[in-house]
Amino acid sequence: MHVLITGAAGMIGRKLTERLVVDRALNGQPVDRLTLVDIVAPVRPASFSDHVKTRAADLAVPGTATKAVSERPDVIFHLAGVVSGEAELDFEKGYWVNLDGSRALLEAIRAVGEGYKPRVVFSSSMAVFGAPFPHAIPDEFHLTPLTSYGTQKAITELLLADYTRRGILEGVAIRLPSIVVRPGKPNKAASGFFSGIIREPLAGMDAILPVKESVVHTHASPRAAIGFLIHAAGLDRDKLGHRIALNMPGVTCTVGEQIEALRRVAGDKVASRIRREPDALIVRIVDGWPHRFDPQRAIELGFQAENSFEEIIRIHIDEDLGGKIAA
Amino acid sequence: MHVLITGAAGMIGRKLTERLVVDRALNGQPVDRLTLVDIVAPVRPASFSDHVKTRAADLAVPGTATKAVSERPDVIFHLAGVVSGEAELDFEKGYWVNLDGSRALLEAIRAVGEGYKPRVVFSSSMAVFGAPFPHAIPDEFHLTPLTSYGTQKAITELLLADYTRRGILEGVAIRLPSIVVRPGKPNKAASGFFSGIIREPLAGMDAILPVKESVVHTHASPRAAIGFLIHAAGLDRDKLGHRIALNMPGVTCTVGEQIEALRRVAGDKVASRIRREPDALIVRIVDGWPHRFDPQRAIELGFQAENSFEEIIRIHIDEDLGGKIAA
Repeated sequence: MHVLITGAAGMIGRKLTERLVVDRALNGQPVDRLTLVDIVAPVRPASFSDHVKTRAADLAVPGTATKAVSERPDVIFHLAGVVSGEAELDFEKGYWVNLDGSRALLEAIRAVGEGYKPRVVFSSSMAVFGAPFPHAIPDEFHLTPLTSYGTQKAITELLLADYTRRGILEGVAIRLPSIVVRPGKPNKAASGFFSGIIREPLAGMDAILPVKESVVHTHASPRAAIGFLIHAAGLDRDKLGHRIALNMPGVTCTVGEQIEALRRVAGDKVASRIRREPDALIVRIVDGWPHRFDPQRAIELGFQAENSFEEIIRIHIDEDLGGKIAA
Repeated sequence: MHVLITGAAGMIGRKLTERLVVDRALNGQPVDRLTLVDIVAPVRPASFSDHVKTRAADLAVPGTATKAVSERPDVIFHLAGVVSGEAELDFEKGYWVNLDGSRALLEAIRAVGEGYKPRVVFSSSMAVFGAPFPHAIPDEFHLTPLTSYGTQKAITELLLADYTRRGILEGVAIRLPSIVVRPGKPNKAASGFFSGIIREPLAGMDAILPVKESVVHTHASPRAAIGFLIHAAGLDRDKLGHRIALNMPGVTCTVGEQIEALRRVAGDKVASRIRREPDALIVRIVDGWPHRFDPQRAIELGFQAENSFEEIIRIHIDEDLGGKIAA
């Protein structure tokens, strides 16, 4: 099986590549060929001896997507995109990468023709929803994004559904909750603190908490996100039907409960490295985000997230810290 | 005030132009300038002595939209588009006209800059919804179009909402129910019979009814549609908020009730011109369409449709038949 990953150099793309290299299989079939595309060159997986192509290219530039699908990958994980903050700051870049790039990919698949019909798994986001919200967002809640990023994700979902209905490809869009704990350095995303208040203290550093401890949010680990992508690649088309965009499950908890979980896992000293410094802008942004979901369809279709925030922390310690905590 | 109408040569475009020429005003301000654009040259309104420009051009072709907005119209009615059946038969044409054309218009407005911020009223459609449905579709029902046309309308709504949120323009998208009675010749749209079973008998011709009389559908007259567009142009932005797409009201009734209304208005002889000829394909298509809506927001915002199907028939007789029925 030939797998193409767009956005392969990003955090999720790298972890997905690692997982496929370990599994050597997808949907019960051996994976013997990987094509990894990103705007920066993806790292070549060292332990994968079969056919690998890595390519640094912009999907929205004419010809890139055509080349990426020319060898007819069976499964395409479309993860490429600029993040929420960047798409909001740079209007043109956001639409170029997140919309034009996605459309170029779908059109390149259509252009292949001759019965080519790959499975396309698209990493969408809960940002397709915008306030005001009911207590928990149901699967049938309307799309009212309040960011350009969310708009671009919603549009790509709609295109993917139409191309699926037309028989051009087999699309699945998974709407990810916040992925926590993100490894690496803090970024400037407004949601960054959800990871930061766990990651920094575990690494011996102070972290800033800009919102109240009563804030409710829904999280899944990077490992769960990879699990969602792989599960989506194998989903039964008939069970999915025409509604190909699915709200993923996650762990819903307050920031206070996140901190309590950190204390239980790593002790008081680690938990005490969180400093409360309210930030009015972040408070306002976070208030406009969805808090809770009721992702019945995804659960019925077998998607699984963690059961507790403690589990999310332990996955980070295991996957990204080699099991070690800075006490 | 300068008003631009795209799709001005279409049925709604022509009726909207006529209405503006009669009213000579919009939102309480005099209309002294009209720009009428369509793929075929719109007819120049005879009785309008002020500045009128008509142009036959394709909005999606680079430069057309730029030219259309170069004289900074205050209100833009964006009606241009290919219909449902055509967008389904010709994939590329549908995306070209309905998506690329709409995006070109929005981008042309953005490119003007310098504080230019027109009101943009977009004629969307209930086709943004796809089965299965609840008994009545609420305002917050999700977007799951089952046609390329519905997909293109939903995407344009999302773009319009994002451009509005960004302060580039003031968008309103109105989702029209079926517009009945359409004047003129029968067309091949699957929904054509909803108009045909009224129009043809009133003109002394036989009409074919391809579905059961128990089929439920929601209708509004062309006059009501023009009223929606004009009301949308004057809507208070603050009352609209971020959710700029509105389900319009209409008259919900069965096909049997349509026929009974025709009998009451025009007599038994006219109503007897309807022949029952079931068509399995049309039955299937119509079953997938929304039947009933609960358009609370639009009603609260003051949008008004007819109160009965009889009223819809009388409007057709008045507007399109000069008050005469072929008895």
